[in-house]
Amino acid sequence: MQFEFQNPTRLIFAAGALARLGEVVRRHGKRALLVTGGGSVKRSGVFARAVVSLNAAGVTVIECSGVEPNPRLSTVLRGAELARREGCDVVIALGGGSTMDAAKVMAAAVYYEGDPWDMIAHGQDRQRLPTRALPVVTVPTLAATGSEMNCGAVITNEQTTEKSFVMAECLYPVAAVVDPELTVSVPADQTAYGICDLITHVTEGYFNGVDGTPVQDRFAEGVVATALEWGPKAVADGNDLEARAQIQWASVVALNGWVQIGTDAPFPVHMIEHVLSAHHDVAHGAGLAVVNPAWMRYAAESRPERFAQFAHRVFGVPAKWSDPAGCAQEGIASFESFLRSIGCPTRLSELRIGDALLARYAQETVRIAHDDQRRLPGRPALSEAEIVNLLRSAL
Amino acid sequence: MQFEFQNPTRLIFAAGALARLGEVVRRHGKRALLVTGGGSVKRSGVFARAVVSLNAAGVTVIECSGVEPNPRLSTVLRGAELARREGCDVVIALGGGSTMDAAKVMAAAVYYEGDPWDMIAHGQDRQRLPTRALPVVTVPTLAATGSEMNCGAVITNEQTTEKSFVMAECLYPVAAVVDPELTVSVPADQTAYGICDLITHVTEGYFNGVDGTPVQDRFAEGVVATALEWGPKAVADGNDLEARAQIQWASVVALNGWVQIGTDAPFPVHMIEHVLSAHHDVAHGAGLAVVNPAWMRYAAESRPERFAQFAHRVFGVPAKWSDPAGCAQEGIASFESFLRSIGCPTRLSELRIGDALLARYAQETVRIAHDDQRRLPGRPALSEAEIVNLLRSAL
Repeated sequence: MQFEFQNPTRLIFAAGALARLGEVVRRHGKRALLVTGGGSVKRSGVFARAVVSLNAAGVTVIECSGVEPNPRLSTVLRGAELARREGCDVVIALGGGSTMDAAKVMAAAVYYEGDPWDMIAHGQDRQRLPTRALPVVTVPTLAATGSEMNCGAVITNEQTTEKSFVMAECLYPVAAVVDPELTVSVPADQTAYGICDLITHVTEGYFNGVDGTPVQDRFAEGVVATALEWGPKAVADGNDLEARAQIQWASVVALNGWVQIGTDAPFPVHMIEHVLSAHHDVAHGAGLAVVNPAWMRYAAESRPERFAQFAHRVFGVPAKWSDPAGCAQEGIASFESFLRSIGCPTRLSELRIGDALLARYAQETVRIAHDDQRRLPGRPALSEAEIVNLLRSAL
Repeated sequence: MQFEFQNPTRLIFAAGALARLGEVVRRHGKRALLVTGGGSVKRSGVFARAVVSLNAAGVTVIECSGVEPNPRLSTVLRGAELARREGCDVVIALGGGSTMDAAKVMAAAVYYEGDPWDMIAHGQDRQRLPTRALPVVTVPTLAATGSEMNCGAVITNEQTTEKSFVMAECLYPVAAVVDPELTVSVPADQTAYGICDLITHVTEGYFNGVDGTPVQDRFAEGVVATALEWGPKAVADGNDLEARAQIQWASVVALNGWVQIGTDAPFPVHMIEHVLSAHHDVAHGAGLAVVNPAWMRYAAESRPERFAQFAHRVFGVPAKWSDPAGCAQEGIASFESFLRSIGCPTRLSELRIGDALLARYAQETVRIAHDDQRRLPGRPALSEAEIVNLLRSAL
């Protein structure tokens, strides 16, 4: 276990914290590019409240709305150009993961020389990471992505149908204003997808990381246990602010690095899902709900003890040392049952994805991320044929 | 649950990381005050290796050795004066908690106007927190305090026999170079005391924090579980580098804020222990090993369900919903047995502390930290008489 880590984001977590947005932003700039998806934050009045807080603090707002789900490179370019033209000195992301990811890459694209797509890992010989960005303040309106307090972003190149990620230190937001009240209006299905997303963030590190990280194991198990306890309450009653707060907090720590630190894990489930949602109109969390259990069943065959530990500690499956594989599969079945109980799909058919293009999905996944034997990194590393089999098992 | 949090410390964790000290320090300055306890880091050769790394990076070293256990205000003043006189622009702490705490307060005292004792909470009307400090790089040689990656420090005023703490944002180290190899030479008893210290850091938040922090509960339980699993190995074989690394990592996260975030907890066990070690030559962790189980027995009477949860989740005590008090006491007994098994004292008599001054200890504890009814804050808040009873139960 060895690592280097620094997460400099200032975190402000409180019901009602939106009212402090202006004060927080004003420490970093006075001309803000305010990035949003557009629709829901305007309908809910959150956009208007944000602008009131910002103006009261003396911050001028330049609106950049219309960030789509699975945010596109063209949107990033549009936002960066607007920020440059308007002389913005700070970027605010008000929305879900797509909005936050787009805003982070816009903030870096303002300074980036050359094609911003080169920032994104997509199988090119040499990814050119950004080294400088405008300060970003995130205001998540959904509990899911963890993007509010990390240095990652996922962008889709709509011309090449590639969806992939960038991680760079300059992308850490300077501040995250996390207000669980903003998630109260999220519908039940999106709430459930967010819960699957946050769980998958920690299971990726747990199952694909290096050996010998017991503290991180416990932290990951704790995040999943919290999601199992509070997730159904948030889905059942969107107005349950306590449940909303617990799920949102779990989603922050699920991907702010505290759980993954030192695990050095690739994210194969995410890589496979990214290809699906690059091709289909699929919510990221819903795609993960299909891919993750199928991936777990596959991966458990080569490492049953690890999955048995998860089953035992998180789902209370009795430890059966004589049959770790059985214990592992029982845990995975419990996980899938949980996902179904909160309303997640767990089959490709529910996403209206058939078997016609499975080989292509596998090929594109491996093109974007592969080891020297052209396998998708993970434990185990997967060949294209294995990815096809895995997806077929989830039809 | 609401909070504001930012921990900007860059963490470098690796066996052999000491060799990178010069490179890390050079980013922040080129004339370093190198603060140490003196003896053990010189005997072990760690001091010499640190100087080699620093000089190779072009950093000039000004030595400030002789920081004693329970570091004294006079030592802080001496170090700050030396840093000022020599024009140091960075401070390095190479040692255990005492060295790190002293170095942090030295770094702030360089800029502090007036008496640096005013930084420290000691019952004065208005504590004047420091707002500026020289950059500090910590290199812990003991797994215990967590000081390497937090903004706290504990100092003893030897003239008034007061030992208390300061927490201020400017005291976060800019970097922590955590090298488990440096802890291999720590003797078994000090290793055990460190394990008790790190466990107590998380139990304070767990038992004295606000309600409704399920993620933090799981994180705290995970840290204790890791200490229970790996601590005995580190005590049994000091050369077990894997065990040393796991315990050191657990000690970092036990008090870098990730576990306590949002719990808003006072630290009554620490406050009581500080008075004991201000009066007696007692290792902090050994004092905690006596006070913590006694405090738990007392506190469990008013909140048995909470202690039953701890007993069940951490020590595997079967959940007995009809008898949470019994379950709670069984868990506390398991904790005390664990402490004894690794060689910690759990009785005041083992620290050679008798019953003569119990009332004075209680009085001084409450003088330093109290609510408006002159009780020591915690769950429950404790009157002086209750502290005396608690200490008497540990004679």
